[in-house]
Amino acid sequence: MESTKEAKYKVVFARHGQSQWNKENRFTGWYDVGLTEQGREEARVAGELLKEKGFQFDVAHTSVLKRAILTLNGILDATDHHHIPVQKSWRLNERHYGALQGLNKAETAEKHGEDKVHIWRRSFDIPPPSLEDDDERHPKFDRKYSLVPKTALPSTESLKLTIDRVLPYWFDNICSDILEGKNVLVVAHGNSLRSMVKYLNNLSDEEIVGYNIPTGIPFVYEFDEDLKVVRNYYLIEEEELKARQEEVANQAKKKE
Amino acid sequence: MESTKEAKYKVVFARHGQSQWNKENRFTGWYDVGLTEQGREEARVAGELLKEKGFQFDVAHTSVLKRAILTLNGILDATDHHHIPVQKSWRLNERHYGALQGLNKAETAEKHGEDKVHIWRRSFDIPPPSLEDDDERHPKFDRKYSLVPKTALPSTESLKLTIDRVLPYWFDNICSDILEGKNVLVVAHGNSLRSMVKYLNNLSDEEIVGYNIPTGIPFVYEFDEDLKVVRNYYLIEEEELKARQEEVANQAKKKE
Repeated sequence: MESTKEAKYKVVFARHGQSQWNKENRFTGWYDVGLTEQGREEARVAGELLKEKGFQFDVAHTSVLKRAILTLNGILDATDHHHIPVQKSWRLNERHYGALQGLNKAETAEKHGEDKVHIWRRSFDIPPPSLEDDDERHPKFDRKYSLVPKTALPSTESLKLTIDRVLPYWFDNICSDILEGKNVLVVAHGNSLRSMVKYLNNLSDEEIVGYNIPTGIPFVYEFDEDLKVVRNYYLIEEEELKARQEEVANQAKKKE
Repeated sequence: MESTKEAKYKVVFARHGQSQWNKENRFTGWYDVGLTEQGREEARVAGELLKEKGFQFDVAHTSVLKRAILTLNGILDATDHHHIPVQKSWRLNERHYGALQGLNKAETAEKHGEDKVHIWRRSFDIPPPSLEDDDERHPKFDRKYSLVPKTALPSTESLKLTIDRVLPYWFDNICSDILEGKNVLVVAHGNSLRSMVKYLNNLSDEEIVGYNIPTGIPFVYEFDEDLKVVRNYYLIEEEELKARQEEVANQAKKKE
């Protein structure tokens, strides 16, 4: 799958820093929770790393959820890029966690059983229980989404459904910026980033559910002129990266 | 000039909070300086005031200078509006201060005489000395403006020239959002805001140079269906406003 041609374009991705609900061990999904102090710190460190390596950006893409926007703002601050256009889209949101959103993960495991919660968290195509149509948590009641047709808004999502929702934005909005020669920065969420990674690296359904993206560590994709991947890598050493990825995986295990 | 028709649209404006160079008493113009702690606090207070009064926004317009963007971010944070689109344009920048940019105001007064500095600061149509074409402070060397034709970029500006640069953005970008029924927030600079205020209230050249806009206090314009002004007002009491405006005017006098 990897291209043998020369790299022509470079895109930087980052997952948002720690949010309040990561810390409180609750299912977050589309719930619009802020960053913790640690999360803001992760954003600043990511920005300083990018500055140190000399990255410059012409445009940034992010979700409409503030944990991603605030992480992006932290990066723009540290790299002195406040002036660039920022495109925000619901299509880059985290996976919608359905009726589980807002619930404590440990309590949910007690109620439904660890096996079921593990499936909802880690299966490729089984979504968690759906939000009722009149549930006040439904995105159709949120003015953030007032310009999205109600029928397009999810009431729950598997990773598969998340991919179906994210990739049109990749093709239509991000790729067009890349092909115009812009230096693009994408700050998003674990599962919206996984959606793009699965497509770009041609990973199987099994591979992608086992693939953990650490928070706050920028990663780079280099593309040839046809937008085929030439190489991709994290901006820090593999060893330090492995340690951080294990930390993410262990946290996930502990919480399940 | 004021319309006798009913108000149909409402737009909120705010001037950025205190910047580092306001504090250091230097000519700022297009130099991209950050906010002081007080400036960030002003943004937060402005946002809380807007939240308290129940304002909601669909889109924000600001300059490409970080003291305006950071003030806007502070307001978006306090009002929980991080998700809205933010349009950033060089046309909403502060007046370009020419060769004076970066210089200490007191030192400049000593060198050129207080009278001359007063004219540069307060005349309607006499610009300060121009930047040399090869001056590294010239905006054509700044990648922020790489998509603006070099011939369109100023090397100095009077208030009159600032107005000529700002109003096309008002008509083409802000008015179109208003007419689409969007709730618009504009965060900009003393002289880019004055440009719009002069036009909207039909003020004379003399009136506008004597008109001081306090930092961080949101002000509202209500328009009829033809975008004629029905009324305009600050979001705080006139007495408190007067005190703040005098503070701005006195600071200006002290610095001249």
